[in-house]
Amino acid sequence: MRIARFSIDGNVGFGVVEGDELDVIKGHPFAEFERSGQKVPLDKVRLLPPVLPNKVVGIGRNYAEHATELGNAVPDVPVTFFKPSTSVIGPGDPIGYPSFSQEVHHEAELAVVIGRMCREVPRERAKDVILGYTCANDVTARDVQQREKQWARAKGFDSSCPLGPWVETGLEPADIAAGLAVQCTVNGEQRQLGRTSDMVRPVEDLIVHITEAMTLLPGDVILTGTPAGVGPLNVGDEVAVTIEGIGTLTNKVIKRG
Amino acid sequence: MRIARFSIDGNVGFGVVEGDELDVIKGHPFAEFERSGQKVPLDKVRLLPPVLPNKVVGIGRNYAEHATELGNAVPDVPVTFFKPSTSVIGPGDPIGYPSFSQEVHHEAELAVVIGRMCREVPRERAKDVILGYTCANDVTARDVQQREKQWARAKGFDSSCPLGPWVETGLEPADIAAGLAVQCTVNGEQRQLGRTSDMVRPVEDLIVHITEAMTLLPGDVILTGTPAGVGPLNVGDEVAVTIEGIGTLTNKVIKRG
Repeated sequence: MRIARFSIDGNVGFGVVEGDELDVIKGHPFAEFERSGQKVPLDKVRLLPPVLPNKVVGIGRNYAEHATELGNAVPDVPVTFFKPSTSVIGPGDPIGYPSFSQEVHHEAELAVVIGRMCREVPRERAKDVILGYTCANDVTARDVQQREKQWARAKGFDSSCPLGPWVETGLEPADIAAGLAVQCTVNGEQRQLGRTSDMVRPVEDLIVHITEAMTLLPGDVILTGTPAGVGPLNVGDEVAVTIEGIGTLTNKVIKRG
Repeated sequence: MRIARFSIDGNVGFGVVEGDELDVIKGHPFAEFERSGQKVPLDKVRLLPPVLPNKVVGIGRNYAEHATELGNAVPDVPVTFFKPSTSVIGPGDPIGYPSFSQEVHHEAELAVVIGRMCREVPRERAKDVILGYTCANDVTARDVQQREKQWARAKGFDSSCPLGPWVETGLEPADIAAGLAVQCTVNGEQRQLGRTSDMVRPVEDLIVHITEAMTLLPGDVILTGTPAGVGPLNVGDEVAVTIEGIGTLTNKVIKRG
């Protein structure tokens, strides 16, 4: 099932995507919910970020080929960082090129959406805390990342975390481990192509690692790392992240106003 | 003026501290507000974290002596990191010693509380976005920090960000630059003592640096770095951060349940 968050005529809600329509949900997807049967055409709504994360936890260097392309080793423990809620944008929203960087990169990533409050999750129960999966672009100011020891500015600037287009709830960690294609195109040209089966650490391990330290809340998001092929974005570019079985997240790069 | 956030009989509110009483506020301190004239004795309420930050932005190595004590140089650009909202606790709340660390340190810090939504703040207007100041303890799993390249787990675990006891709105950046004493005691014994005049970068510069990249929201918090003298905390310890002109933030360290 694909659950989208949308606005129409100033109202915000969730709906289940069925072909080119949304079946509006009564309530929210973090508890049992009913479909209202009220259908809205997808092309009449504005899709919003599918969740409003309290925090986004990123994992760096989780695909060996990508670590190597930037001259880094695969780390012994996962590299764990935050992107703040103020960095989150939705499908179709513009990525504002920040004034303090000359080298902004795309990083196509599978995003895990957390469904329930959890802490110290044992590995065998990790799948129970997942609501579903969406596409993410871990937009990164590469020059700033290389200059500044901690990545809060390089990976936390406004609009650096596009998420969407919806949450696919029908996938299991086993499907991720078996391998879904993760692709990034810029202006229609392929830049990144990897498979989730090449993740150094699978989704369950990341949940164990993160929740050993901190509570995750419903709507929180884990970014699972990017495959090889990262590269620059320029003002005017259209960047699209497509994940097999989920969908496509498209954003345009604009000059930050 | 000192503004506290409190709960009593299940109700949560803000109040102005006057001696040993709270004058309950109508509304919240992020807009014009009135005092209700309804007084509550301070010893009858539970003080909460004085704000609910959307994000806490930390600055590392902002006192030269502290950078040196850990064998680090003062960085060319501020080291900027996040602590998530799930790490925030209030005065009197327990710090849970995390299971994944053997070496948890106290770091007494002046915290800046942001009063209004802001981005790309010019230096001369930085003071206008500040609501006030409070005490913070940037509790850090030092061993994890040294092992993991990014500090999300080392500085972002649950209860690693005590804030309080209230927000002092009567201080100006000039008072911070002139120097307030920042002290940390453990079980009554002094461990850290510094002066805010020894900050490498003053409060206004930190606001410019952070908001160049990201929007700050009302209630967001900036931690301005810790003076020399950081050291271990153990289960059973009582740690107190006292800042001249603000007050004392006390928390006990417990075994994480």
